[in-house]
Amino acid sequence: MAKKRELPLAQVYGLLEPGPVVLVTTARRGKTNIMPMSWHTMMEFEPPLVGCVISNRNHTFEMLRATEECAINVPTADLAKKVVACGNACGRTVDKFKKFGFTPVAASVVAAPLIAECYANLECKVVDRKLVGKYNFFILEVVKAWVDPRRKRLRTIHHRGEGVFAVPGSTINLPSPKTSFLTG
Amino acid sequence: MAKKRELPLAQVYGLLEPGPVVLVTTARRGKTNIMPMSWHTMMEFEPPLVGCVISNRNHTFEMLRATEECAINVPTADLAKKVVACGNACGRTVDKFKKFGFTPVAASVVAAPLIAECYANLECKVVDRKLVGKYNFFILEVVKAWVDPRRKRLRTIHHRGEGVFAVPGSTINLPSPKTSFLTG
Repeated sequence: MAKKRELPLAQVYGLLEPGPVVLVTTARRGKTNIMPMSWHTMMEFEPPLVGCVISNRNHTFEMLRATEECAINVPTADLAKKVVACGNACGRTVDKFKKFGFTPVAASVVAAPLIAECYANLECKVVDRKLVGKYNFFILEVVKAWVDPRRKRLRTIHHRGEGVFAVPGSTINLPSPKTSFLTG
Repeated sequence: MAKKRELPLAQVYGLLEPGPVVLVTTARRGKTNIMPMSWHTMMEFEPPLVGCVISNRNHTFEMLRATEECAINVPTADLAKKVVACGNACGRTVDKFKKFGFTPVAASVVAAPLIAECYANLECKVVDRKLVGKYNFFILEVVKAWVDPRRKRLRTIHHRGEGVFAVPGSTINLPSPKTSFLTG
């Protein structure tokens, strides 16, 4: 992670607001897991809050509920095949870091490992579980954020359903007088 | 809307899961509003549930809380300038349909108008407001969905922060044995 730099927490929304598939990592009792996730949203700029749905049929659900910690890792298109493979294996029986060739890196605040190959890594703590029972919906606070400053073109992957992923091509620049134009 | 066809509700997730900026429309007492929104997530496949943050500083917040209905409209890159302009005007004083040249079309179930120029339109009802007080977080159920079947390349817009939007270029096909690969 020598190559990663710390990202100011106020800039975290720019990583998740575009809607990329992310990899959620967890650790418990000497075991780790990796789960692809696409149902997430920003809920606050600073401290950055992220709401996400993690099915209670998944091993990550148990890990997250027990430890109340995870990391959100943002992969790019070069990792797409591994991301999908990760979602088709179960962390109860498989060491996904080993099986899919991801490199675990120690986080600074949480026990969950960060994925070295991912463009960005967000260390998170569960801060609200009111909607976990009804919707499997966790609210996380991002407590530390890391990005690879060398990568310029962010070829994140965006799930359109049924195994089809969109990858960003062009960009549009439309600066606004306000921080977030998403109002009215 | 003669050109739009009804989309089975089970397919709605494929429209929102990639994370596009959407336009939320509302109607109340003969007035309408349009608000760009980017903080949303799918929460259930069927019936489709969508969680979203709408700031209580926005006119749409009051409209939505009072009527408990809205529509989510999915714009494409050709509308990007109008989308940003919509976010920099306030619906309390401006008729945004008229000002920005959007065409309102009557919805079938809700009072909120649909935007004809958008690729897809989702008619929604508020089904859970438990987190509205603390996070401005509404849970909507999509009760009717419409798409333009003639559009193939979906040039949706994805907000990276500070007025920079990514537009999908290439796609990756990685079919999975499961409906959603996003597990583990």
